[in-house]
Amino acid sequence: MRQQKSVSMADVARVAGVAKSTVSRAFIHPTLVAAPTRERIRRIADEMGFRPSRVARALSTGRTGLLGLVVPTLSNPFFGPLVAAVQQAAEEEDRQIVLMISELSAERETRLIERLSSEVDGLIVATSLCGDPFLRKVAKRIPLVLVDRRVGRLPSVLIDTPSGVAAIADHLIGAGHRRLCYVSGPPGSWADAPRIAALRGRAEESGADLVVAGPIPPTVDAGIEVSETVAKAGVTAVIGYNSATVLGLLHGLGTQGVRVPEDVSVASADDFILFQSTKPAVTVLRLPLEEAGHAAVGMLARLLRGERPGKPVVLGPELLIRESTRPPG
Amino acid sequence: MRQQKSVSMADVARVAGVAKSTVSRAFIHPTLVAAPTRERIRRIADEMGFRPSRVARALSTGRTGLLGLVVPTLSNPFFGPLVAAVQQAAEEEDRQIVLMISELSAERETRLIERLSSEVDGLIVATSLCGDPFLRKVAKRIPLVLVDRRVGRLPSVLIDTPSGVAAIADHLIGAGHRRLCYVSGPPGSWADAPRIAALRGRAEESGADLVVAGPIPPTVDAGIEVSETVAKAGVTAVIGYNSATVLGLLHGLGTQGVRVPEDVSVASADDFILFQSTKPAVTVLRLPLEEAGHAAVGMLARLLRGERPGKPVVLGPELLIRESTRPPG
Repeated sequence: MRQQKSVSMADVARVAGVAKSTVSRAFIHPTLVAAPTRERIRRIADEMGFRPSRVARALSTGRTGLLGLVVPTLSNPFFGPLVAAVQQAAEEEDRQIVLMISELSAERETRLIERLSSEVDGLIVATSLCGDPFLRKVAKRIPLVLVDRRVGRLPSVLIDTPSGVAAIADHLIGAGHRRLCYVSGPPGSWADAPRIAALRGRAEESGADLVVAGPIPPTVDAGIEVSETVAKAGVTAVIGYNSATVLGLLHGLGTQGVRVPEDVSVASADDFILFQSTKPAVTVLRLPLEEAGHAAVGMLARLLRGERPGKPVVLGPELLIRESTRPPG
Repeated sequence: MRQQKSVSMADVARVAGVAKSTVSRAFIHPTLVAAPTRERIRRIADEMGFRPSRVARALSTGRTGLLGLVVPTLSNPFFGPLVAAVQQAAEEEDRQIVLMISELSAERETRLIERLSSEVDGLIVATSLCGDPFLRKVAKRIPLVLVDRRVGRLPSVLIDTPSGVAAIADHLIGAGHRRLCYVSGPPGSWADAPRIAALRGRAEESGADLVVAGPIPPTVDAGIEVSETVAKAGVTAVIGYNSATVLGLLHGLGTQGVRVPEDVSVASADDFILFQSTKPAVTVLRLPLEEAGHAAVGMLARLLRGERPGKPVVLGPELLIRESTRPPG
């Protein structure tokens, strides 16, 4: 098979018999090179497969055409559709997405953001694990849009899961449940405080009890582990932080001899295509992830054009009631 | 909030009071600029947040430091771990991954590859939907590594699912099944022909029957739809093309009144974390996706250094037997 090497500017210069700086000028400052020379250099570069387009654009505009996207994981079904939507929206703007996965580590996320911010035109960071001061500092250096995270007035696209979680509570309390459990997500999760506040509000209004289990990592295994605590909490309904938590709960509660939904109703604060197909099918919040991806790219594009990003976009989830939740007893 | 614009070379030139071409030279051909001027330009550029590093590298080496990764979808759990592994391996080489998702369209994949190939140093294309001639043409233009696809002697990382699928057949036939069904993947799938050949071989050797259903798209919905055909095929065991197909089958067979595994055993030709937690837990092939991602980046790095890529890497899957497969009747 044919061996290949990238063609450098020096290669083009050698073949064309000109200085490297002449090749550079032929692409970047064409008016500084006599037309016949320029045309010859471009033809040779083209034949040799030299690819100056993005580079030339970057040099003359200070832009690379690249947008960075940082997500915590691809194992959580939240992020696949978001990444796909961001990539598609970016493509419509003739921009490309450099993807970084932080593997649920704040330390790694910090490092990836530091690095990406000198390589791309702008950044979209989803459900960031980093602290507010770091994100503010980044936003001073490079256009930044947060997804599912609010930091003061930084541009952000928010999914209003607190109101969605409150809607699940209304559904459960309306069905007669009097003692609910919320299984919370990772320690320090930005999403949890407003959800728990919303749930507390609903419980107080209706005289129901709320037990908060966790915090636990948002994984199937941690959901299985926390099931023992949930089984002993004397609750008739559980709301899980996300679909991985709930998959763990479904499995773990079964192992504990707790039947869903006969003994305990279970609902998930996010959706997962498979929850249609599990037994029982699971009551979920459907999150507007495609909309969120498009909104984030739109906001970043405005920042890159030097326009105001606009107010945070708040998108509402939809409650889909299925077999896993029903009146208690 | 502070408005931001990218800093261009022209901005730096204006502040430094020099020509744009001088700024360009200060970064790309520093020896052509007097040291005090060069230092002043670099200091000003730095203060203004001008980011020439990748651009400068690209101009002087013909390399961008970017690798393109094309996958068909992120909805299929095959690709999350592969993307994560490719990204991590690339990071270890100080390279970044530009991700493109073809949304299971060969036409879109062609367009994305055409586009990426002029923007990145090399390409990794997973389970390509494009024809051999196109992929050969791309490989002449830019270093290319295929994952889960073989095209002549093009560099590739293969996951030997045919032998894995044969191992599932051995397990089922050994348990006493005499009439098996394979639900095949998308029309024209490169993966299916060798799998079906391996299954036919096993069936003939043991005097069992093999029914092939499909081709169908590799989605949960299509798996649900094909369940009616499978239920009427008079088989006692089914092997699904991938986990989405199998999730559809689990749901669809239930709707048809077919119990798994009492009436029909079900196995999946790929793994999915949730198959541990479904009822019944599903017999699967665990695919070496992390290894595949690292191997693909390693092979591409060799191509980029002008070395021979080495023979195709063939990685074997592991059969995990769970509750969904058992002796018939």
